[in-house]
Amino acid sequence: MSNPPSSKRLVAIPASPIRKLVPYAVAAKQEGIKVYHLNIGDPDIETPQVMLDALKNWSKNPIGYSQSKGEPIFIDALKTYYHRLGYQFIGGDDIQVTSGGSEAISMAFFATCEGGDEVLVFEPLYTLYNSFAAINNVKLVPVRTSADAGFHLPPRIEIEKKITKKTKAILICNPSNPTGTVYTQQEMDTLFEIAKNHNLFLLSDEVYREFVYDDRRHISVLDYMKKLPEKIILLDSLSKRFSICGARIGTFISKNKAIMDGVLRIAQSRLSVGLIDQTIAARLTSVPRSYFKKVHREYQKRRDVLYEELKKIPGVSLKKPEGAFYAVVTLPIRDSEHFSKWLLTDFRFKNQTVMVAPAPGFYVTKGLGKQEVRMAYVINISELKKAIEILRRALIEYKD
Amino acid sequence: MSNPPSSKRLVAIPASPIRKLVPYAVAAKQEGIKVYHLNIGDPDIETPQVMLDALKNWSKNPIGYSQSKGEPIFIDALKTYYHRLGYQFIGGDDIQVTSGGSEAISMAFFATCEGGDEVLVFEPLYTLYNSFAAINNVKLVPVRTSADAGFHLPPRIEIEKKITKKTKAILICNPSNPTGTVYTQQEMDTLFEIAKNHNLFLLSDEVYREFVYDDRRHISVLDYMKKLPEKIILLDSLSKRFSICGARIGTFISKNKAIMDGVLRIAQSRLSVGLIDQTIAARLTSVPRSYFKKVHREYQKRRDVLYEELKKIPGVSLKKPEGAFYAVVTLPIRDSEHFSKWLLTDFRFKNQTVMVAPAPGFYVTKGLGKQEVRMAYVINISELKKAIEILRRALIEYKD
Repeated sequence: MSNPPSSKRLVAIPASPIRKLVPYAVAAKQEGIKVYHLNIGDPDIETPQVMLDALKNWSKNPIGYSQSKGEPIFIDALKTYYHRLGYQFIGGDDIQVTSGGSEAISMAFFATCEGGDEVLVFEPLYTLYNSFAAINNVKLVPVRTSADAGFHLPPRIEIEKKITKKTKAILICNPSNPTGTVYTQQEMDTLFEIAKNHNLFLLSDEVYREFVYDDRRHISVLDYMKKLPEKIILLDSLSKRFSICGARIGTFISKNKAIMDGVLRIAQSRLSVGLIDQTIAARLTSVPRSYFKKVHREYQKRRDVLYEELKKIPGVSLKKPEGAFYAVVTLPIRDSEHFSKWLLTDFRFKNQTVMVAPAPGFYVTKGLGKQEVRMAYVINISELKKAIEILRRALIEYKD
Repeated sequence: MSNPPSSKRLVAIPASPIRKLVPYAVAAKQEGIKVYHLNIGDPDIETPQVMLDALKNWSKNPIGYSQSKGEPIFIDALKTYYHRLGYQFIGGDDIQVTSGGSEAISMAFFATCEGGDEVLVFEPLYTLYNSFAAINNVKLVPVRTSADAGFHLPPRIEIEKKITKKTKAILICNPSNPTGTVYTQQEMDTLFEIAKNHNLFLLSDEVYREFVYDDRRHISVLDYMKKLPEKIILLDSLSKRFSICGARIGTFISKNKAIMDGVLRIAQSRLSVGLIDQTIAARLTSVPRSYFKKVHREYQKRRDVLYEELKKIPGVSLKKPEGAFYAVVTLPIRDSEHFSKWLLTDFRFKNQTVMVAPAPGFYVTKGLGKQEVRMAYVINISELKKAIEILRRALIEYKD
């Protein structure tokens, strides 16, 4: 008997395009090469001191389970956070604490779709949606957006024509990872109407909510929740907002009682989210306003530097990102996967190189994104300038 | 259009039988009733000081992502732990850090089975295996064990006759939650041979490894791993061993490379396990031997008290538990779900009552376990005696 060594569904889970180049980066570093990381959204910004203080003053012993729904003080803090944003209708019952935004996304697919059902997404998309779709046996149906249009939505008809009998939900990321696009009021109205008219769930991943630049206003799916309480789900996380990616804390928010009861049963199966992470995160309402203002100013400056410096390089094109801390950039190359690997294995400038994420992994459709890479502007301005200068030199040296 | 409010597969996830009585316990407490918790394995034992010290001395800022495979210092500590147990063949590549033992179980189902495949389990079983089976679209096929036999395995033929073309794995919990049974060398040999002869995976949940009493020896699946490297998976967790249930830390261990590569891709999708929890847990090799000796002695004493006191109650029967910190106890009642609820809603002795977990939720087969409850001896001896005295009085007062 020779069964395969694992299930076929395990084989079908895609490797993370963000992380799969890591071994080459490790090898470069072992050679003594400095690698500028523009490949992953792991910010260098400090975690708020008031959160770290919760560790120094830790007194609970033993470190026992938290509640499956979430630690009560953290749920209270989340309620206060959403109320301050103007969404007073969010109650404790509408909140499920999750292990990162990741678990919230996975729960959303499981809760809204049977195996084999379809979810509309806009590509390029957050690459891990592909993984969670595979894990939950959901088919992502991509609606294409283009670099020329700043990755904004295509006309409504282009979206609606992808809807089939199996379509159960539309999933957006707003502000968008990987494109930095922030959807306008009109775009959000359109998505709401499509969801309403076709009886679809509208799932909105808003982990970059506050990262919106040039006085743009972020339009949350929460603005529509009261009008379509059964069909709207907010997927959220504190990771980026408070620079605590390593504290696995997210939220799944909905007014749909059947869904909230069901995700609580999923939550009970994994017992609880980390007690310490939630205790730190519960301090979110004590983080001074000045913290986020400073963070916001810093990212907007980095965005400006990234944009201005990249625009100077012949053959490189991008629209100015509107939010988050990513940009999908078109380069004068034919194969961004080859180029990204080459940067790590072959190219060096004064013992330095740069790491970027090739864009094909951010598409569902095979063959797209071959001239594009995603860059995360999560390093300080002086390093960012150096990284882009290195990229400029690399593009001169690189032969397709 | 009136679609159902959620997916059918969400509806199919069972509620936790351990947690579903919680609202009644909360209501009793609000009335001023003291509730002795024998219902859940959340120990009162202190977390080792050396782990808590890692919080006081926290210096990393920001709290960034850990690696998807696990934080290197934690993987190193785990290697040392398994090497000290005598399993020198465990390398870093064989270890995937998981978010609690829970994630390891879920990964094991996904990695070894296609949707619709079957896994043999021994009932009564850890109730959450039912949830993870539902989440991963796996069918649990129960092999019954009996209270009279101390929940040890039935003859080999009884196990083998449950194997079908769809059977992909055997899952055991050893020492067992909920029964406290510790499998003998002979039983483990039998399971290994069945797995080998029928080309099945052998999945072993050993989170209670060290909780083995009366000088019994725990036989780990690791003892067989070199003989069947492609088919053996260890599911483990530090939660109980170091009384850190609220730090979500587990491990998935195998020599099957396709499986390890695949679970790493699942792990990449949820980015990382908590950095702080792993940093604390990495100190496991510095926990003095005296810590666990004391813990072990305490649990063995509690086990003795539980057994001796329960044996005195007319109509109550149990075999002396061999490991873990649970017992499945037969009571002179007809419906343990009704009785368990009644304890919380109706029965009081001097403003006190006791909470137990009705056993039907620990069976796959409907209708079994109606005279049984699971008790966790996770409270101190003085409280445990009081709790059993309350149970004795309740059984006198209770009318079926």
